[in-house]
Amino acid sequence: MINETNTPKPALRVELGERSYDIHVKPGVIAEAGGIIAALIKGRRCLVVSDRNIGPKYGTLLASSMQKAGFDGSAVEIPPGEGAKTIKFAEFLYDRCIEAKLDRDSVLLALGGGVIGDLTGFAAATFYRGIAVVQVPTTLLAMVDASIGGKTGIDHPKSKNAIGAFHQPKAVLIDPLTLISLPERELKAGLAEVIKYGVIDDAELFAYLEENMEKFLKKDPAALAHAIEKSAAIKARIVSQDERESAGGPRALLNFGHTFAHALESSTNYQGYLHGEAVAIGMVLAAELSVELGLLTRADRDRIKALIEKAGLPTKMQSGDPDTETLHAASFRDKKVAAGKLRFVVTERTDDMAKKVWNVGRSSQAV
Amino acid sequence: MINETNTPKPALRVELGERSYDIHVKPGVIAEAGGIIAALIKGRRCLVVSDRNIGPKYGTLLASSMQKAGFDGSAVEIPPGEGAKTIKFAEFLYDRCIEAKLDRDSVLLALGGGVIGDLTGFAAATFYRGIAVVQVPTTLLAMVDASIGGKTGIDHPKSKNAIGAFHQPKAVLIDPLTLISLPERELKAGLAEVIKYGVIDDAELFAYLEENMEKFLKKDPAALAHAIEKSAAIKARIVSQDERESAGGPRALLNFGHTFAHALESSTNYQGYLHGEAVAIGMVLAAELSVELGLLTRADRDRIKALIEKAGLPTKMQSGDPDTETLHAASFRDKKVAAGKLRFVVTERTDDMAKKVWNVGRSSQAV
Repeated sequence: MINETNTPKPALRVELGERSYDIHVKPGVIAEAGGIIAALIKGRRCLVVSDRNIGPKYGTLLASSMQKAGFDGSAVEIPPGEGAKTIKFAEFLYDRCIEAKLDRDSVLLALGGGVIGDLTGFAAATFYRGIAVVQVPTTLLAMVDASIGGKTGIDHPKSKNAIGAFHQPKAVLIDPLTLISLPERELKAGLAEVIKYGVIDDAELFAYLEENMEKFLKKDPAALAHAIEKSAAIKARIVSQDERESAGGPRALLNFGHTFAHALESSTNYQGYLHGEAVAIGMVLAAELSVELGLLTRADRDRIKALIEKAGLPTKMQSGDPDTETLHAASFRDKKVAAGKLRFVVTERTDDMAKKVWNVGRSSQAV
Repeated sequence: MINETNTPKPALRVELGERSYDIHVKPGVIAEAGGIIAALIKGRRCLVVSDRNIGPKYGTLLASSMQKAGFDGSAVEIPPGEGAKTIKFAEFLYDRCIEAKLDRDSVLLALGGGVIGDLTGFAAATFYRGIAVVQVPTTLLAMVDASIGGKTGIDHPKSKNAIGAFHQPKAVLIDPLTLISLPERELKAGLAEVIKYGVIDDAELFAYLEENMEKFLKKDPAALAHAIEKSAAIKARIVSQDERESAGGPRALLNFGHTFAHALESSTNYQGYLHGEAVAIGMVLAAELSVELGLLTRADRDRIKALIEKAGLPTKMQSGDPDTETLHAASFRDKKVAAGKLRFVVTERTDDMAKKVWNVGRSSQAV
């Protein structure tokens, strides 16, 4: 049932006309990056962007692969963490692009987690009105979510991801071996998004996660590669159907559990929870709401909650977290607010968090 | 032959599928902006961006038209001049967008010349991954060129327009009455681009300019409206054919005279010449080169040069301007450099400026 990780498989593809691209999920693919990218890019200049945690681990491997393929360029490292998703670091990258003499046919490589991917993608989207970027995600979260779909952005001091652009990569190179060095807490946070794909789209994946959660927590390469491929395939398909997250379009489904998560992250100044942890709580609340609305059975809600618990993720808020009103206000600053209206489902219940803040998606169809 | 300025005409349209939009050329159209924009935009929040010269003249008219159409919002003014095309002022606009509670369905209005259009367009392209912008150009140059086609951008300290995005406006509202307040030197600079359209695409427009140059210099409204419409129609058509200036695509034709102009402007730190003045010199040199290459008759070259002179524009560099080597080096920093190669025509001659720096386009087809 599970593919061996070294069996050749048909590439995953995001179908977007002339902006289509492949997602390569393969252990060791970083060492083959140069050849893959050389076939996609006209120019032979590149800039590898990474952070000070990831750069020392995989930067040399990636850079030497690029060099062997005839690329000329340089590598830069920025400080790790969300603090680098700022205009200041976008400017830093523009400076390095100019210094490295990148032109319109050059390519930026984003080697790292979501912050590196978002920031580097934004720089690529806006340098010379858009140059190529290749995403090389090294966290589970970035592999199954942020690296696919072309959302790029940086934070405004008052609004996360408020400054950004849609800019599809030329390729996504996912090397599951890089997960070896991923801290356990971040691995679990990434699993939240994998669970989400199971809930919204793939009952088989959901069941597989239920059966094999221990393998994930032990970083079993075959199990991880399988779950990454299944997740990436779902993301790729939904992005193909709805590139720019049109109002009411299928891409909104990816936000299952996310409106609440964004409000929670924002209200805790992005200090209390990793994104995946906030999503985990958001999914439990969304499932709860779905039961209230008659869209989900209690048994399925219990399965969702149990799987999230099994992954070692939180299922409810902690004492000391913001109250409902604060979360509600925070969610109104979310950029998903359209024409002054929130896009949540609102229940008549007054006795739980479900009252105000989240997105149900179409959870009932999935599990 | 010339339409009366108050006769209804079919709207000019930039055909780009779902990104198509109309160009309204009409005296007094600023007072009708609210109604036009309300029909295009889902939201009812807006931010009017202008500079301290233009804002006091037309800002109130535009804002009150928006208000009457049900829009809520505010207006901001930035300092006039190219110095405002920086990341700092993009940040300033992001701050104002957040303060004005703009959401994804809101609209930015760019009321002013090319700097305002480029900066505001860039902010719109990157706020919440792209919100609507309406261009309301108030200089001749912006009316016939920058406001149409979706090029937006700001300057990097080492490279003009290096940071930007393609982001088509929802509409372009051109009110020729605003030219009344345009300084004569800027009017003439705008005429350089109008002459360019005559050269590259419209022999009738070229002949009309030859016959009526005195009217333009006196700001005759009917003559100006006619030339703006003809020019905007050409720009609209070329943009429709080649939205993103593909290598060798028709949009490159719009760069007739421009590669030299960019090098000259850059080498003189954007102090010596207005853009249109540099383009005027670039066109004379390109015409000269075209004669050398057997693409243009001497008689046509003389007509081009004579018309540029008639418009009160420079036809050659001044003593004290940078030498050929400096211009050549500057042009290699131009972002049109693709994979390390300049996209100019290079002659074998050694005795004039034509040797190294400019774009001929297809000038021989036009005049």
